Amino acid sequence: MEFLEGLKDRIELINSELARYLNVGDQPRLKSAMRHLPLVESSKRLRPLLALLCAEAVSDGPGGEGSKRTIPFALTLEVIHNFTLVHDDIMDEDELRRGVKTVHVEYDMPTAINAGDALFARAFEILSETGLDDAGLRKLTREVAQMVREVGEGQQWDLDFGSRMDVSTDDFLKMIELKTARIFQLAAKGGTLIGGGTEDQVKSMEEYGRLIGVGFQILDDILDFSRDSALKCAGSDIRQGKRTLLVLHALEKLKDDEKTRTELMSILGNSSASDEDIKRSLEILNSCGSMEYAQDFALNYGKLALKKLEVLPESPSRKALEGFANFMVEGRTF
Amino acid sequence: MEFLEGLKDRIELINSELARYLNVGDQPRLKSAMRHLPLVESSKRLRPLLALLCAEAVSDGPGGEGSKRTIPFALTLEVIHNFTLVHDDIMDEDELRRGVKTVHVEYDMPTAINAGDALFARAFEILSETGLDDAGLRKLTREVAQMVREVGEGQQWDLDFGSRMDVSTDDFLKMIELKTARIFQLAAKGGTLIGGGTEDQVKSMEEYGRLIGVGFQILDDILDFSRDSALKCAGSDIRQGKRTLLVLHALEKLKDDEKTRTELMSILGNSSASDEDIKRSLEILNSCGSMEYAQDFALNYGKLALKKLEVLPESPSRKALEGFANFMVEGRTF
Repeated sequence: MEFLEGLKDRIELINSELARYLNVGDQPRLKSAMRHLPLVESSKRLRPLLALLCAEAVSDGPGGEGSKRTIPFALTLEVIHNFTLVHDDIMDEDELRRGVKTVHVEYDMPTAINAGDALFARAFEILSETGLDDAGLRKLTREVAQMVREVGEGQQWDLDFGSRMDVSTDDFLKMIELKTARIFQLAAKGGTLIGGGTEDQVKSMEEYGRLIGVGFQILDDILDFSRDSALKCAGSDIRQGKRTLLVLHALEKLKDDEKTRTELMSILGNSSASDEDIKRSLEILNSCGSMEYAQDFALNYGKLALKKLEVLPESPSRKALEGFANFMVEGRTF
Repeated sequence: MEFLEGLKDRIELINSELARYLNVGDQPRLKSAMRHLPLVESSKRLRPLLALLCAEAVSDGPGGEGSKRTIPFALTLEVIHNFTLVHDDIMDEDELRRGVKTVHVEYDMPTAINAGDALFARAFEILSETGLDDAGLRKLTREVAQMVREVGEGQQWDLDFGSRMDVSTDDFLKMIELKTARIFQLAAKGGTLIGGGTEDQVKSMEEYGRLIGVGFQILDDILDFSRDSALKCAGSDIRQGKRTLLVLHALEKLKDDEKTRTELMSILGNSSASDEDIKRSLEILNSCGSMEYAQDFALNYGKLALKKLEVLPESPSRKALEGFANFMVEGRTF
């Protein structure tokens, strides 16, 4: 988390704005359920951070006018991200997130659906306060809405892949582009736009966001094996039978080793797999070189992203965006 | 449905625009789940109808420019209404709606949550096409988002009331103002605004929308006893233990008749209550005069609403809004 230490001032700003924006509504149980997940302080705030850094990099630096104009947009993305987590946790039947009980466990399922919806609605209220001209905001609002719909498409592919044996690497990449990368892509695009970037800068930073978003998800799938169980169960992707890049690579490598392939398949999607089983699946993935393959894959996306930063003038904010890309694709421990 | 026959041209326009707007997305299962409920043709389309009639009444009549400008806004409300139904049906565990299986039954629960979210997102994409100046749209977008959040507050009160014995008539009215009336209120306000109405007209029509929205819900609770079971189970409110105006009135009337009160309470919230039980609960409500009380209550809201129409010039559209109010609070059979 060393890298995030250097962005502490922005994270504190995001946390306080978030607490303020979510201090809303007259229904005590709904309000409390809405605030449950977003206000967990250990959240890394990656999406709003990205938007703010991009705005800084094309305007007057940290804490300047460009950054200030971007705050509501940045918070919109954080609130949307949290709404999708609240609903995804219901769909995936996850019980822990960020070290706390998920909303449907802490409250109940109907309240969690409702709280997610209310967060989603709140996001558009916040977005309307963005410091962008009215015509620009109309366009941005449409893009935010489209992004959420595409994130939902990604989530649906993810749900559908669980019961399919014919998922290809391309299918997987399309899925994470939608489910994970779209919001980073729009964070970078929107931040650069609101900060006052040129058309070229906006385009290049949008691509930067997409690339680190894909790399982030691949690293996340790797880290799923080493999660602190106080935060989320390690190996939960395997237990849920998710077709991650790791799994797809191993299944391909094992196509002539029926025995090991069958062994891996017997663990994959077995919701009551033991920790011993998860350890064994990790051994198989390692023996196939799948962990290394995925790591290289993520690093490569990171490298491509760094190149996109060349459109930005040299500045501490650009430097931070270099660190951000590295953090996204290799620097995290969970 | 005689009244709606006269609005057939608008309903057909709404249906075809809705089919067009929901022909979107690349994920086949999500797309199909999104379209499942909204495109059921028997839907009455009351919210978009209200928006269009208001726009007509303050501009150039049916099919004119004012009405055309309002179409995306009107469709936004219909899509939002459908998204809330998809999620409410999960929360209430309802299996039938508009004569078809609910989305979580026809597909599955995760897909239904996701389809609701995608409809919600799509609504804001559609809203951005409304024929309103950019500054006006920024404000309207915020109001639509706030309305959805308040509908969620109403839904949460409704969920919470089920397990409480101390619900008052005021609590109940506050709940249906949020859950049911808010969207009619904004339909009337937004339609009048986009149509080009004066500040006075907008304010008066907003109040008209609120009043018929409350009356609509009270009539709906009455009609719950006489529903065609092919559409939705009759008596489902009783089985779910909902504190409707009818129930609140009867419990008050029965406060000195412990035996009948206990009998009613034993049916209320009993999810496996028989049709015989539901019939008996209806007898009790009738003997308390609760059905008549609720009918008068709804009619009174309708009368107050009709007065609000005085701000509009005489026209066929104003005439239609009179019929609309009557239909909302007394004219429907289901």
